[in-house]
This record gives sequence, structure tokens and C-alpha cells, in this order.
Amino acid sequence: MKIESLISEIHKKKSFLCIGLDVDLNKIPKHLLETEDPIFEFNKAIINATHHLAVAYKPNTAFYEAYGIKGWQSLKKTIDYLNDNHPEIFTIADAKRGDIGNTSTMYAKAFLEDLNFDSVTVAPYMGKDSVEPFLAFKEKHTILLALTSNQGAFDFQSINNTDNQPLYKSVLKTSKTWQNSENLMYVVGATKAEYLKDIRAILPESFLLVPGVGAQGGSLEDVCKFGMTKNIGLLVNSSRGIIYASQDQDFATKAMLKAEALQRDMATQINQFT
Amino acid sequence: MKIESLISEIHKKKSFLCIGLDVDLNKIPKHLLETEDPIFEFNKAIINATHHLAVAYKPNTAFYEAYGIKGWQSLKKTIDYLNDNHPEIFTIADAKRGDIGNTSTMYAKAFLEDLNFDSVTVAPYMGKDSVEPFLAFKEKHTILLALTSNQGAFDFQSINNTDNQPLYKSVLKTSKTWQNSENLMYVVGATKAEYLKDIRAILPESFLLVPGVGAQGGSLEDVCKFGMTKNIGLLVNSSRGIIYASQDQDFATKAMLKAEALQRDMATQINQFT
Repeated sequence: MKIESLISEIHKKKSFLCIGLDVDLNKIPKHLLETEDPIFEFNKAIINATHHLAVAYKPNTAFYEAYGIKGWQSLKKTIDYLNDNHPEIFTIADAKRGDIGNTSTMYAKAFLEDLNFDSVTVAPYMGKDSVEPFLAFKEKHTILLALTSNQGAFDFQSINNTDNQPLYKSVLKTSKTWQNSENLMYVVGATKAEYLKDIRAILPESFLLVPGVGAQGGSLEDVCKFGMTKNIGLLVNSSRGIIYASQDQDFATKAMLKAEALQRDMATQINQFT
Repeated sequence: MKIESLISEIHKKKSFLCIGLDVDLNKIPKHLLETEDPIFEFNKAIINATHHLAVAYKPNTAFYEAYGIKGWQSLKKTIDYLNDNHPEIFTIADAKRGDIGNTSTMYAKAFLEDLNFDSVTVAPYMGKDSVEPFLAFKEKHTILLALTSNQGAFDFQSINNTDNQPLYKSVLKTSKTWQNSENLMYVVGATKAEYLKDIRAILPESFLLVPGVGAQGGSLEDVCKFGMTKNIGLLVNSSRGIIYASQDQDFATKAMLKAEALQRDMATQINQFT
């Protein structure tokens, strides 16, 4: 998907909501467990109930790998369902991959070509030749981990170099020099919204995928205050807060209501900041 | 597997060889493509021909994910075959995963419990709470990326902090403070053998997984000179140099000969350094 299509969808829906499809069989409604593919049935119901409110869906691959081959089948059915029924919606394989060149190419093919996601998240630790194979895919996007939403982000991402520049800023600046860097987006946790001002000084235009609003405690208002651009430039993710709003028969409706509330807040932010 | 069992196997075989099962359908003998599961048939033949020479096998998950559900089936059959027939051999899921806590737990379960690998490689960028869920698995091992064999390693891993300490050393030192850190091993590329002296000052005992001997140009002798401990403490990986020694009917025999040559060099190093 071209970035222009994503931007147009954001304005149309007045939403920059990304819904994380992190399906845990212990948390979904019991009646779905009797179906042949509970993970896919759950995702399909969530997508049907929320696709008018969300501009992106993000399955985290860990939750599918945890169920082995059946999990991969559910992942494939989910992305096929999205591509068949909602090609206007941006899709993210939250896989956090990264390996030496020829191996990263295999990962890139798996997610961007075979499964046909619009984007994939990638870890920066191994540097340029581990990320460029992802960037080589045209009209696809590579979402690089920059400043993550968890506590462990402060173990290494905030280490200052001899010029007093934290590691995550080195990642941002160096990544801009890589081939096809126009295909980059970045993960910045909502729990670290105050850092967004500095990040926008380095990346005035790039799209940021922002997890951590809701369950992890990040504030949507702060994220927008420091991170929004004239093209919005944000995809704010919510997973548990939406998809597990109810564990009963009404789970999809309850998820829709949660998504609606978040979309309304986003519309307010869009009107206020643009 | 307990670390003592690995050490005993190393001494028994006079080998610290790890064989990388990175199977690319474009590179395996053509006659295997007619079988129902070419990847598994290839791995089985390689394992049958080399198991007396190797102490570890390391499938890189990228090469399996690239073939979707069929690839995951091949991966499962490969690890089951190893566990059923060679439980004395150490197995490594080269997956380079890492995510926030509850998500890392899903990855850890997938590789260490369901697939039942002895170990999994993990990326450190997200810090403590992304790695500790892997460390929680008893008699399993987490192999943390420290100083990788590729050129891109110098993009971030070698950035000095304000105390002039490169990032990879911060990763080594900090990781030693994590819960169950005795279950840690580390990836250090053979192409950076001269760094092993410094690394051994921080990690006098830890096992190191060393890729990059052979195709990538690292020297076995240098790796041993700077990295070997009284318990050997090394797993030196070779993938392409062994498994693609021939693309004809004789591929398994040719792979065995390559593995034999490497094992002989390793026996010499063991005799010399211990």
C-alpha cells in the first residue's frame, strides 16, 4: 500500500487506530473454542465489528506461533480475510524480525510477499544489512523498533553515546541513511510520549506506530500533542483494551464500543491539531 | 538439556560443531524436490550423515517461515526427528525473537515447550523484560545476540557510551544481572574473533555460539585462541559450507566430509588448548 492511501483512509475515517490482533485462546469467549479455527473466528468477528473505525490491524506473530502450524493457518486466514475484504486497511505483521542479509530476505518474503502484509516490524540491533532487505520491497513498509513501550527500553535504548546521544536516536538517524529509507516507519511507545518532541525533530514526517495507549498506561492526548504531523503521522495501537472488552457472546459489539470511544477521541485530536 | 550434558558430548565427540539447517529449496539437490517434504528429507539426510560429528543443530526459522505452513511442518518434523533419534544433541531455534514480557512468553513457549528446542536465539534491544521470559524455562538456554558476524554489527553494537564502553559490552554486563542469567549463552561472530579476549574478560565461563566461520570468512583458530575455556565454551556454526557441499545425489556424503574436516580441526584445537 502507498503511504498516500493510508493517509487518505485516516482522513476519511477520522481515525488513526490500529487494532492489535493478539489472540490468546485463554482469553477469548468460550463458545468460540468449539469452532474449527477459534483464532480466525475471533479475528473475523473483531474485524467485521471494527473495520469502519480502524485504519490498520496488527497481528503479533508470537500469538500465532504459540499455536504451531494451526496458529500459522489462522494467521494466513486472517491476513487473507483482510486483503480480500478490506484492501484499504493497512496491515502490520508485528514480527520484530532481523537477521543477516540473505536471511532477512527470507523473512521479508515470508511476510511482505507470501502472506502479503503491507508492513512488518523489524529490530535494529544487527544494523543496516539486516534491515535493507525489508526496505527493498516496493510499496511495503518496514517498521523499525526505536523506543519501545516496555520498562526494558531503558536498559539499552536510552544509553548515551560519547556525544550524549541516546541509542534510539542513533537508530533513527542512521536508519535515514539506508537505501529505500522512505519505506521506514518507527515504533515509539506511548508510555514515552514526552520523547516524541525530540523524535519529531529527527523524523518530521515519518509515520510512527505507537503501542502502549490503554493497558500500558500511555496517554493519547500526549502522543498527539508531541507526535502528530500535518499528515497525522501516527498509528496508535490498542490490543487488549479493545479485543478483550468482553469474554461473552457480545464480545464483538463490546470491542466495537471500545474502538468507537478511541476513534472519537482520535477525531477530536485530528480536528484540534490539523 | 543441562549444560553438563552438552559439555560431555563435546568431549566425547571432540567437536564443538553446530550445523546450521538453513534450507533453501533453490539450493538443495533437484531429486529431493519430488519428495513430499523436500526440506525435511534434506535435513534428515544431513543429520543422518553428520550426527556423529556435530554436537548441535541450528535451524534458522527464516528459512522455514519463508515456506509458510509447509515450512513450519518441516521445522516441526526436523526438531521431532532430532529429539526422537538424537536426544544427546543440543538444538537451537535460531529465531532472534524478542518482544514485551507477555509476548516473549508466547515465543518462549512456542520454541522451548511446544517445539521442544533446547535453546532459542533472542535479540536484546528491548531489554530485560523481553528476555527474562525465555530465561524462566528450566534446563533451556537463551542465546542472546551480542556481537553479530555481519557488517551491520558496527552500526549500533560498537557505539561507545560515555564510559567508552561499546553497546555489546553493556548487553553482556547488564544481561548477567537478569533473573536466571545462568541460562544465557551469547552470539559472537567469528568475523570478530579479536573481540573475544575482551568478551571472555566479562564472560569467563559462558557458552558462545559463533557463526561466521567459513562462508563469512572467520577463522576457527582465532576463535579458539581467544574464546576457548576449560569447558570449551564454544559452539562454532557452519551452515552453507557443510549443507551445500554438493547439489547432487552425493550431497549427504559430501556434507559429512566437510563436517569431518571441520571436526578434525576442532579436535586439534581442543587438544591444544585444554
